[in-house]
Amino acid sequence: MASIFSKIVKGEIPSYKIAEDKDHYAFLDIKPLTKGHTLVIPKVEVDYIFDLSDEQIAELNVFAKKVALGIEKVIPCRRVGIIVIGTEVPHAHIHLIPFQEEEVFNITREKLSLNPDEMGEIAFKINSVI
Amino acid sequence: MASIFSKIVKGEIPSYKIAEDKDHYAFLDIKPLTKGHTLVIPKVEVDYIFDLSDEQIAELNVFAKKVALGIEKVIPCRRVGIIVIGTEVPHAHIHLIPFQEEEVFNITREKLSLNPDEMGEIAFKINSVI
Repeated sequence: MASIFSKIVKGEIPSYKIAEDKDHYAFLDIKPLTKGHTLVIPKVEVDYIFDLSDEQIAELNVFAKKVALGIEKVIPCRRVGIIVIGTEVPHAHIHLIPFQEEEVFNITREKLSLNPDEMGEIAFKINSVI
Repeated sequence: MASIFSKIVKGEIPSYKIAEDKDHYAFLDIKPLTKGHTLVIPKVEVDYIFDLSDEQIAELNVFAKKVALGIEKVIPCRRVGIIVIGTEVPHAHIHLIPFQEEEVFNITREKLSLNPDEMGEIAFKINSVI
């Protein structure tokens, strides 16, 4: 069965799209730790990130860098950090998290609740600079 | 001035070395979130990970994968996760964190205190399978 992320890539489930290329897709996390918190995925449905081939892991991270530099242009932040845990959805994904304070790197923390207009605006702005 | 990580690479500061190649170095974090928590760095002294070139970021992540697969062979864990924050030491570094429970992904959490013998044994074991 297709993962929820594969359905997002196909447009069967809506997402706030940030960027896309032939092999990768990036979209806003709907339970963000910070404004601009983005998920970057390979389109290939592999559960565990370290099961990707060397070439796939290299290309995924180069794509993630491009997305991170776009996030930085739009979201005021000290820098963009990374978390990969991967146990919630069985489809490899990189969290890109723009931050001011390191304390946001706590996944037990309460997530932000942004309204659809805000999410749409953030996605549109980042998308337009990538 | 050389970063603390460059001094570690040169052996001017001791470390529990996990793996090394021409351009990369991996060693145990001395304030680990879990047993086997490892730092992976490029030898080139770049502060912010997304300032690495595409080639550098690709190669760093391929090296990190190799290290992660070694960690998994030695440390009983569900999988190995990733955190990159980078504000403590101005030299890009990837945290590889073997984990059973997602709750360890909280950098405000108290760190483990392992004795030098334990750290040495963990490093030796992982090093020997990479």
